[in-house]
Amino acid sequence: MLFFTQCFGAVLDLIHLRFQHYKAKRVFSAAGQLVCVVNPTHSLKYAPTLCAAAQTSTEQGILPPCHHHEAVHDPQLVPCMCPLFSCPWEGHLEVVVSHLRQTHHINILQGAEIVFLATDMHLPAPTDWIIMHSCLGHQFLLVLRKQEKHEGHPQFFATMMLIGTPTQADNFTYRLELNRNQRRLKWEATPRSVLECVDSVISDGDCLVLNTSLAQLFSDNGSLAIGIAITTSKVHNSEAEM
Amino acid sequence: MLFFTQCFGAVLDLIHLRFQHYKAKRVFSAAGQLVCVVNPTHSLKYAPTLCAAAQTSTEQGILPPCHHHEAVHDPQLVPCMCPLFSCPWEGHLEVVVSHLRQTHHINILQGAEIVFLATDMHLPAPTDWIIMHSCLGHQFLLVLRKQEKHEGHPQFFATMMLIGTPTQADNFTYRLELNRNQRRLKWEATPRSVLECVDSVISDGDCLVLNTSLAQLFSDNGSLAIGIAITTSKVHNSEAEM
Repeated sequence: MLFFTQCFGAVLDLIHLRFQHYKAKRVFSAAGQLVCVVNPTHSLKYAPTLCAAAQTSTEQGILPPCHHHEAVHDPQLVPCMCPLFSCPWEGHLEVVVSHLRQTHHINILQGAEIVFLATDMHLPAPTDWIIMHSCLGHQFLLVLRKQEKHEGHPQFFATMMLIGTPTQADNFTYRLELNRNQRRLKWEATPRSVLECVDSVISDGDCLVLNTSLAQLFSDNGSLAIGIAITTSKVHNSEAEM
Repeated sequence: MLFFTQCFGAVLDLIHLRFQHYKAKRVFSAAGQLVCVVNPTHSLKYAPTLCAAAQTSTEQGILPPCHHHEAVHDPQLVPCMCPLFSCPWEGHLEVVVSHLRQTHHINILQGAEIVFLATDMHLPAPTDWIIMHSCLGHQFLLVLRKQEKHEGHPQFFATMMLIGTPTQADNFTYRLELNRNQRRLKWEATPRSVLECVDSVISDGDCLVLNTSLAQLFSDNGSLAIGIAITTSKVHNSEAEM
């Protein structure tokens, strides 16, 4: 009877593991680099709703609006920055990370260079792959989004945002790199602040943009590996001078 | 009277120079790098016509077809590879360069690293910017094309092709780099052979792809500067190993 109970327990554990394997973000190390497996989030609502809500609330004097390329001084409360979730949460910039972790189960990874492995790239748009990255004393949000700007032609957009103010964001440079099939694509830019809408960054096209055929060329078995590196702008500039 | 004739001659020369300035590809050196100003070519016909013609001719046993990712062994005659020109010319691979120079007035530049400066990026699609690049004992064709894959949404496609066979092309790696406004975009790949259709490379999306907003971010006064570098694959591989 004890043997039977143990067997049943083991089967339950296996089922639980399988479930976790699908739901959670797996992290492992390959060739010295931290690889983070990120599962997709199919979104029902777009953040413009959130922006509109924030705008309406601002008119009532509660929340700051979605700022586009503008510095926000001493923000008191910010709406939930988790893109594609129409989350009614609002809070200080300092507690955005804990909100994203606890409420939206977004993983946070440590390390100067990590590999973001987005699974199930074939899923229909709109879909998001999101991870937080802790580096150089700050937290960054990496968003990969599959979206149809032109009907029937989904594209992939990848950008990195600082969970901080635009002034703080100006101190950093992020690099996204794809490398496969004798092809290499690198995008380097200054991260935007999460106080700016991720939707505006993507609609402006000011990010790494991949059409479906390029995404397929860089994918392996339906997963896309994106190498991520963050440097301070100072280091970046001295490198450029060299 | 002699003075008058000379003045008139000088004015004529100036008019001629102004005309050449607009028509020709200007070359100058900036900060040690060779900068080549490339004016656009508005195209009336697309190369598929050419491919179709080549295909028809092949059926008659005259020309090789447009090969996609296939090696062409000892090609006898090739159709004119100048993209977007429905040119009836056919000849050996060895005389493609002189045909492109003489008939289509495509400039050829020497040097390991050059800057391709495409002017008048605002011109409507379809438009091509074409240059030849002589490097490492071979000639390459750089094609930048503005094309509307989705109506009303022009995109820019840039690729490099070897004026040689696919087997020869496999020995090289080309890099296209855009750098402006604190943003950097790099594309590295093995060049395709001109025996493959440039149109198929672009329709496959296996090249550097820019949407209009990204092209604007990287443009200066309506001109887009693309840094070009070619290396042998051996050098590239040893760099990767380092």
